[in-house]
Amino acid sequence: MLGAVVGGGVVVGGGGFALGHSLSSSAAEAANSGSPDIPFYAQHQGGIATPAQDRLAFAAFDMTSTSRDDLRDLLLTWTQAAAKMTAGQPVGPTETQPEVPPVDTGEALGLAAGGLTITIGFGPSLFDQRFGLASKKPAILTPLPALPGDELQPEISNGDIGVQACADDPQVAFHAIRNFARLARGVAVLRWSQLGFGRTSTTSNSQATPRNLMGFKDGTNNIKLEDTSALADFVFVGNEGDQAWMRGGSYLVTRRIRMHIESWDRDRLGDQEAVFGRTKTSGAPLTGKSEFDTVNLTAKGSDGQTVIPADAHIRLAGPASNGGLKILRRGYSYTDGIDPRTGELDAGLFFIAYQKDPHKQFVPIQTRLGSSDALNEYITHTSSALFACPPGASTSKPWGADLLR
Amino acid sequence: MLGAVVGGGVVVGGGGFALGHSLSSSAAEAANSGSPDIPFYAQHQGGIATPAQDRLAFAAFDMTSTSRDDLRDLLLTWTQAAAKMTAGQPVGPTETQPEVPPVDTGEALGLAAGGLTITIGFGPSLFDQRFGLASKKPAILTPLPALPGDELQPEISNGDIGVQACADDPQVAFHAIRNFARLARGVAVLRWSQLGFGRTSTTSNSQATPRNLMGFKDGTNNIKLEDTSALADFVFVGNEGDQAWMRGGSYLVTRRIRMHIESWDRDRLGDQEAVFGRTKTSGAPLTGKSEFDTVNLTAKGSDGQTVIPADAHIRLAGPASNGGLKILRRGYSYTDGIDPRTGELDAGLFFIAYQKDPHKQFVPIQTRLGSSDALNEYITHTSSALFACPPGASTSKPWGADLLR
Repeated sequence: MLGAVVGGGVVVGGGGFALGHSLSSSAAEAANSGSPDIPFYAQHQGGIATPAQDRLAFAAFDMTSTSRDDLRDLLLTWTQAAAKMTAGQPVGPTETQPEVPPVDTGEALGLAAGGLTITIGFGPSLFDQRFGLASKKPAILTPLPALPGDELQPEISNGDIGVQACADDPQVAFHAIRNFARLARGVAVLRWSQLGFGRTSTTSNSQATPRNLMGFKDGTNNIKLEDTSALADFVFVGNEGDQAWMRGGSYLVTRRIRMHIESWDRDRLGDQEAVFGRTKTSGAPLTGKSEFDTVNLTAKGSDGQTVIPADAHIRLAGPASNGGLKILRRGYSYTDGIDPRTGELDAGLFFIAYQKDPHKQFVPIQTRLGSSDALNEYITHTSSALFACPPGASTSKPWGADLLR
Repeated sequence: MLGAVVGGGVVVGGGGFALGHSLSSSAAEAANSGSPDIPFYAQHQGGIATPAQDRLAFAAFDMTSTSRDDLRDLLLTWTQAAAKMTAGQPVGPTETQPEVPPVDTGEALGLAAGGLTITIGFGPSLFDQRFGLASKKPAILTPLPALPGDELQPEISNGDIGVQACADDPQVAFHAIRNFARLARGVAVLRWSQLGFGRTSTTSNSQATPRNLMGFKDGTNNIKLEDTSALADFVFVGNEGDQAWMRGGSYLVTRRIRMHIESWDRDRLGDQEAVFGRTKTSGAPLTGKSEFDTVNLTAKGSDGQTVIPADAHIRLAGPASNGGLKILRRGYSYTDGIDPRTGELDAGLFFIAYQKDPHKQFVPIQTRLGSSDALNEYITHTSSALFACPPGASTSKPWGADLLR
């Protein structure tokens, strides 16, 4: 049933309006501007080694059906819908007969895809007894352990299926999540969602490192997307896993990291820079002069102490402190109004990282950070989730085809 | 005290980094792209008759100080900060001495102003006994009456001072609100805040009418910003008011209108179109063929009923049903995650309207809509506020100068 509405089973009404890119002359003009479309059918899912788009809409869903067929149908429906939306098209006719609801909700009509990617992942809970998937569960898809400093809220953590929608237009990203929720009706429900914003392509040099809400450049030493060797070493699952269906996939960790920005804003500049190990304005490491200068972890100042403190974020988060391990980060800033308990802004970083093995990569890094990082005074992790993201879909293999085979 | 930090009372550190547009070559390049700056010092405040930017950050503040001098200082500080931020500059030095906190929080460094406007307004509560302003209260600045269908939440309604920050970059809009909150420390606190998103300039023709989250074009018959006669008739206060300090100003009504989009998405197309009185895909009135065709409220169908139903939104909200009165709307869509009580998306429209007299313009229109509008089944008003926005500031007259004279 679910598949049918996307596949075109609903009769198009007589309104005479073509859909999508050819909607109207002004809409077509709009659709031709902006970011290029990201191919949906590909070896890896989009949204992982894709240059970070400006906006994020993330959602976690829980299955309400316990039918394996419903799960398969849902993944097929979502695959077909994602293929359409990432090409700037509605998920189905908006000009239905008057007697039936429109298939697409319509708010993205006339808007370009804006580089939309939709990335799906399966949480550990999906592999419980409900769908007969226990034997397909990767050994490393076990929930993250309790980590130092966690103050996680269960109602905004975890979930059976995670969906990351990124685009340069927030209405397009929201539209994707909303239509996934609509197409899931009766089978799965939203568990939690999060909006985020990042660099802005219209006003920021694409090579510039964006700043986080603490005012510091964030991501200087991230894995470069053109570094295919690092992507193979650290991000995409090769032949080493125990589950063939994850080859070409990646493991996604999300963490909602609230920043106590009022406290931060009261901190003196010298301490802020010591916390990060970088100069605030330029982004240069404290041992260098410009942003991309090599971080010198052993250089000492006139006081005999290392210039970059022992508990500086740049030291503890870097590969040198983590056995050379890296993760691919693509975080987004968020702000969710005011915390009614404190009257302070609820804002921070929605951290997203892709990696081959979260227990060998994210967990040891975060354990080190959570224990010692000078940043801890100013942040709290309030949400956490882990998802196994399969490889890219193809027209003959929708999301989950190999998992549910 | 507050004024000093913006005015340059903090010594700039020796880092040698120029601030703002000349931060670095890449930042300068970024700053030169994007939207043009909107002049801050002008007859009217920006953000009213300014073409709607892509993003909104709105906040309401409550005074915690009861000192009239503190209020005056705060408004001076905010005026100076707004003049800097709307020109793409930080509110003060980021390169302070290490012993003191940076004056600007830094997250917008290197970003262009993105068409930033900051618009301030004074709520009815500011004119109580605290600041001796009772005699300066406009007679029409009385709280909005209870309106049909209201389900207002007091904690996200009203406030002593409202601040609307609009820009094409959400980080820039957020930065403005955050720095206002920081500069107000000890004098005023955030009461509530709201983010919103609208059209996206990179992907949408600037002449195209944006769609709301119900998928319908919204704003087709809004006051055109080039229609100076309509702005004078309906938006900006002239000589008719009882308070000289409001001449050139406008009255701002905000309403957070939650849409029950899950119910809406289940509604059949014919009913959706009858609710609005427009065709969904094209935006044409049901009596026309294209979006800007004249709405014919008397045309009848073969069944003898008017084609545009008696309770259609387009009929009840239009000037013909409201004695020719218009308001200037500049609403933004919002989505604030999931309502924990229902599991449904908390999303809708943050309605913003500027007008000469809310009791003659917004109140009768909303009373009519709240009583009869077919849309009511699908929406709930959850927040409401009213602010008196003074005219534009000048270098010799900061915000509130005439009010506090």
